[in-house]
Amino acid sequence: MPQISAKGTRMPASPIRKLETFATQAAKTGVKIYHLNIGQPDIETPAAMLQAVREADIRVLAYTHSAGTESYRRRLVQYYAQFGISVTPEDILVTTGCSEAILIAFMTCLDPGDELIIPEPFYSNFNGFAHTAGVVIKPVTSRIEDAFALPPIETFERLITPRTKGILICNPNNPTGYLYSEAELQTLKTIVQQHNLYLLVDEVYREFCYDGKRHVSALNLSGLDEHAVLIDSTSKRYSVCGARIGALVSRNRAVIETALKFAQARISPSTYGQIAAEAALDVPPTYLASVHREYESRRDFLVETLNRMDGVYCPNPGGAFYVIARLPVDSSESFCQWLLESFRYQGQTLMMAPAAGFYATPGLGTDEVRIAYVLNRPDLSRAMTCLEVALNQYPGRKQPVTETQTVARFS
Amino acid sequence: MPQISAKGTRMPASPIRKLETFATQAAKTGVKIYHLNIGQPDIETPAAMLQAVREADIRVLAYTHSAGTESYRRRLVQYYAQFGISVTPEDILVTTGCSEAILIAFMTCLDPGDELIIPEPFYSNFNGFAHTAGVVIKPVTSRIEDAFALPPIETFERLITPRTKGILICNPNNPTGYLYSEAELQTLKTIVQQHNLYLLVDEVYREFCYDGKRHVSALNLSGLDEHAVLIDSTSKRYSVCGARIGALVSRNRAVIETALKFAQARISPSTYGQIAAEAALDVPPTYLASVHREYESRRDFLVETLNRMDGVYCPNPGGAFYVIARLPVDSSESFCQWLLESFRYQGQTLMMAPAAGFYATPGLGTDEVRIAYVLNRPDLSRAMTCLEVALNQYPGRKQPVTETQTVARFS
Repeated sequence: MPQISAKGTRMPASPIRKLETFATQAAKTGVKIYHLNIGQPDIETPAAMLQAVREADIRVLAYTHSAGTESYRRRLVQYYAQFGISVTPEDILVTTGCSEAILIAFMTCLDPGDELIIPEPFYSNFNGFAHTAGVVIKPVTSRIEDAFALPPIETFERLITPRTKGILICNPNNPTGYLYSEAELQTLKTIVQQHNLYLLVDEVYREFCYDGKRHVSALNLSGLDEHAVLIDSTSKRYSVCGARIGALVSRNRAVIETALKFAQARISPSTYGQIAAEAALDVPPTYLASVHREYESRRDFLVETLNRMDGVYCPNPGGAFYVIARLPVDSSESFCQWLLESFRYQGQTLMMAPAAGFYATPGLGTDEVRIAYVLNRPDLSRAMTCLEVALNQYPGRKQPVTETQTVARFS
Repeated sequence: MPQISAKGTRMPASPIRKLETFATQAAKTGVKIYHLNIGQPDIETPAAMLQAVREADIRVLAYTHSAGTESYRRRLVQYYAQFGISVTPEDILVTTGCSEAILIAFMTCLDPGDELIIPEPFYSNFNGFAHTAGVVIKPVTSRIEDAFALPPIETFERLITPRTKGILICNPNNPTGYLYSEAELQTLKTIVQQHNLYLLVDEVYREFCYDGKRHVSALNLSGLDEHAVLIDSTSKRYSVCGARIGALVSRNRAVIETALKFAQARISPSTYGQIAAEAALDVPPTYLASVHREYESRRDFLVETLNRMDGVYCPNPGGAFYVIARLPVDSSESFCQWLLESFRYQGQTLMMAPAAGFYATPGLGTDEVRIAYVLNRPDLSRAMTCLEVALNQYPGRKQPVTETQTVARFS
């Protein structure tokens, strides 16, 4: 039998999907599973986007330009202008979701063996794309005790070698929900300018910033035109994950021209997806406002409820629709598997993503889980009841936290 | 400024799109350009597929399973059964066009530096994906004089080294239109079995075989279960290039399991595309029959007309919707550029793909062009009139062919 490539053999399986076999088994028994494990929003897709596809006058469903249709790129220019981000259609490459934008950005900016610094925990698919491109991820650890804030500048500088080509952040962050401040972005700016690095920024959750805070894009900062490479997607913003439409945006012309060569090989992104995405600008502002309110209220409920549970600690993140919580368990992976295999509360259980899969450093996050708040409030509430009951029953539960720790966790 | 990766710098630009700047310029002058340069069919997409998307009851346009929806994979099993190809849903990974199937197949089967033998001329995007994956393409030359038949077995064996991991063919072939015979496939089977290689087969033009000939799939041959990896796509078959739905199919379970890891990183293919593709089995057989008739009649007209032109030679290919023709010109690239820049006949000109871009060996195919017959008969006829007039006027025309050559070209 011909051998599988070493690259293929070593390709990491998605940690988010690791528990799926247990979930499938559980589902067969008729148990109701609350899915808090993946970032698939439950929010309805805007009617205008669905309607644009329904009403599209198509006789031949043809390829589009490799960079995306000009009409969609023009509308994206208007979209970014709302955030004070000034770009031209030539600065934009439309991609097949943010996934393709990440892979093409890696291929364009880094050679095999080159190093990319990413604050951990990070979006686990960065591992898959780094592996595919041969890129070496150098994690800097952000800690739950610091609410996952950007580690100090020295931590980054200690990691910089002659092979370092860039820093990548996701802002607001998946999986932590952390919203980077303008000061933190200025810190990153200083580093990338000083060391001549790319600053790759995944801003797919741009609209989801809470407590009245404003999102600062890397493209809002001056002096970064040659450094900043934006990875974007319509998926979460408009609940259109299945459209598979993202974008790679940079004012560095060489980056976009090189990226376009990779894009030409795959000819073009989905035509239907682009039709839906182009209609996003016809979506009334009330849509995003109400989605925003909904997520913020879910976050408020979730963070408060989690922190009220004995031994649980959950920082209050400023954005996206994820939280990372520390649980009083021996191993969050065993706990999540136990939830699916053995735990039932009134015919219900829940599924969460063990957080270790989001850390590159072995041993970190083993008692943490990522929770995506992609369920409506009543379901979220029922899921939290399940979690609390489960934590009390779980055989691998650690001793209840001490008084000191309880205080510490709200500091 | 941070540097572009060496990989990105060396990434080949698409040769098919090289002439686009000149075409854009020409279009601005109001000239009518007959586009014979790309494989974008003019044929209408089946109504059932467009209707399935229009009528889909979607509230949340969500991700699907990374391998594609189960319902679509089940229907693909039925589709393949029509051709005597017996596979299960677990043998199928739904991909974003055949493009992604090619890239994932390369990553799964070959490591950087591994070698893949491909008969040239070949689909030029193989170059881009090979470059992306670090795969080294070893061309075996098929010659226009032999109507691009598979070169003798010794030619392949001479190229096999310890780094050789596979052979890739496209059948029927893009860019030559050549349809491989069962005997030729048996030859390939012998080689891959003897040398323990993968046989990657791109069969996206399966339905387009002419003169009553039948397509033989690599998956129709016994004894190849561990070797054969099928790259497929709905794009050309149903004129749905913009749906971006293809597939990777193999009975080698390790191949599909490894491929799925790469697929999980990008989450899922287009949901709309899968809805359209799933409806393909509702398309009445009369659709493909009439498309088949249309292409065959275009091919008959095109081959006959080309061969009637003084100094032009075009073999009569058995499939797909391409021909490669040899023209009496100094350089087909200069000629194609001249057509766009300088030549006008009654306000019209034509665009073709210079064939050198489909050869890996430098210097080959420099007087050949690829013509995609993706225009209706009247337009194709007008385009051929333009070509004949142009060949008579072109300053770089070579001497008219001698009597001997004229006879030879019909042998």
